[in-house]
Amino acid sequence: MKKLINAPDAVVADALAGLAVAHPSLSVDVENRVVLRAQRASRGKVGLVSGGGSGHEPLHAGFVGYGMLDAACPGEVFTSPVPDQMLAAARAVDGGAGVLQIVKNYTGDVLNFQMAAELAADDGIEVGSVLVNDDVAVEDSLYTAGRRGTGATVFVEKIAGALAEQGAALAEVTAIAEEVNARTRSFGIALGPAVTPASGKPGFALGDTEIEVGVGIHGEPGRRRDAMAPAAQLVHAALDAINDDMPLSGDVLVMVNGLGGTPLIELYVAYGEVHRQLADKGVRIARNLVGNYITSLEMPGFSLTVCRLTDRLTELWDAPVETPALRWGR
Amino acid sequence: MKKLINAPDAVVADALAGLAVAHPSLSVDVENRVVLRAQRASRGKVGLVSGGGSGHEPLHAGFVGYGMLDAACPGEVFTSPVPDQMLAAARAVDGGAGVLQIVKNYTGDVLNFQMAAELAADDGIEVGSVLVNDDVAVEDSLYTAGRRGTGATVFVEKIAGALAEQGAALAEVTAIAEEVNARTRSFGIALGPAVTPASGKPGFALGDTEIEVGVGIHGEPGRRRDAMAPAAQLVHAALDAINDDMPLSGDVLVMVNGLGGTPLIELYVAYGEVHRQLADKGVRIARNLVGNYITSLEMPGFSLTVCRLTDRLTELWDAPVETPALRWGR
Repeated sequence: MKKLINAPDAVVADALAGLAVAHPSLSVDVENRVVLRAQRASRGKVGLVSGGGSGHEPLHAGFVGYGMLDAACPGEVFTSPVPDQMLAAARAVDGGAGVLQIVKNYTGDVLNFQMAAELAADDGIEVGSVLVNDDVAVEDSLYTAGRRGTGATVFVEKIAGALAEQGAALAEVTAIAEEVNARTRSFGIALGPAVTPASGKPGFALGDTEIEVGVGIHGEPGRRRDAMAPAAQLVHAALDAINDDMPLSGDVLVMVNGLGGTPLIELYVAYGEVHRQLADKGVRIARNLVGNYITSLEMPGFSLTVCRLTDRLTELWDAPVETPALRWGR
Repeated sequence: MKKLINAPDAVVADALAGLAVAHPSLSVDVENRVVLRAQRASRGKVGLVSGGGSGHEPLHAGFVGYGMLDAACPGEVFTSPVPDQMLAAARAVDGGAGVLQIVKNYTGDVLNFQMAAELAADDGIEVGSVLVNDDVAVEDSLYTAGRRGTGATVFVEKIAGALAEQGAALAEVTAIAEEVNARTRSFGIALGPAVTPASGKPGFALGDTEIEVGVGIHGEPGRRRDAMAPAAQLVHAALDAINDDMPLSGDVLVMVNGLGGTPLIELYVAYGEVHRQLADKGVRIARNLVGNYITSLEMPGFSLTVCRLTDRLTELWDAPVETPALRWGR
């Protein structure tokens, strides 16, 4: 294993130490593993907390900042954070208007966020929760009952974050987060595996011309192994899976996301295909992201995420955001 | 070879087609391979043109926009663009105040930009040129006489772009570009090779525990093959090489750049080390970038770029920028 790390068990702490000194806009508690905004939101704003296993950067810590998250709780690589982190985050960001937990649907994350919510409630903090489960590839998976939560998380964090910034109440912020999740679907394809620092070995094995269609962000199996094919066909497979589950029409927000080991030039090739194939269906991409936003360490491959927009969602998407990984319009 | 492409000879055109529909802020001439700002700069502004082989994205097209480049000319993967592209770019962006070419020191790029400059001069366009040659790893290399141009390009494009936006004359913009290059040094380390679409094969071979110390952005050999080591040691080797060439002191701008296949979490580990080791030397990182800015397709590894700042350079670095890959403060 060749990784740019000091030691497998120091990766998360070392990366948080680097994050802390790289971004003055963040306040990083390296020991307790909570990433906060350096400049806290004003009292009365709903606090947004997310978190999950590390190895998906920039998710979630890269999305802490004005217009998006108030706090992120990073676990070990591909491992849920613990309730103590989530409770510390809730306490730190509650400004009297309550806290929304944004939870990707993995069993460990779900249980730990639930426990943290109960502990926070004991403290008198009002807690809402949204479960992100947008990955149409499979029902139930290696670490999940139901569908996995993947790319929609970025959209939920951005759009709920914008509404929270406007001073909306917890029930409204929770409702819009649920709406974004309900209107969003994702599908991923791996061209190869990732290597976790702890194992030092590829998470799965693929032949020289083999791909994993419907892969999860921890390398969970998808729908099938298939033969490598041109980008147009891979995009078609992903779009088909999404469209079968949620027929697409009107204006959409699209993310072509790199899983970590795919060059940006290839992501633009894929985005061009998505645009062309959606145009053929009469679907217009009104907004887009192309890049590495929710990764799986150095996994080569991509995921496609599509959200059926409404005017309101578009407006909230366009609202100013200022985080390490997403920034515009302020 | 598993790549997210349609065909090796279509990669650049397909990616430009994707870039065109992804970014309304860009005007992309896919056929002639020139990327311009959709909203042209006002007359009287010096036009900034750069370009080079594709495969280093987001460089250069991702840096076209307010406060940075006016035009980028992408060549085939790891291959210089041709003078016609550069001439078309110069004609498109000349607003009467002349054009600055930002040229990374590779023989093909240098010759072609020179020819384009002569052709543009025949058209009555005043052309300045800055040669970026910041990579301290080796004198002369596979495609270069003298030192290779790497990470400093990002700094030159940003800082010269900011000065041009303020309405400075061509001589001043050229001078600051040269100053940034003179005050900046880089050093890269590869943990593995990249695969060009045309060859379909790794550009070089490394053993399971071997690294290339001082690698170029096309996989050119560095100073030596060495054994894989912890991040702290790799950062130390890179910093030492830079410091030996240009003793560091005072305030610096640092980029920890991913070569394409290294997870962001690892880049933050490396950045933490850079910060600690520079602090030990009494050097303060006043500004930083951590991420994939000048890549080598999917190469695993990183490069470190350090610029000795002045107040003026810091001010220009902080000036508003609005491009697909770098955006702040407007």
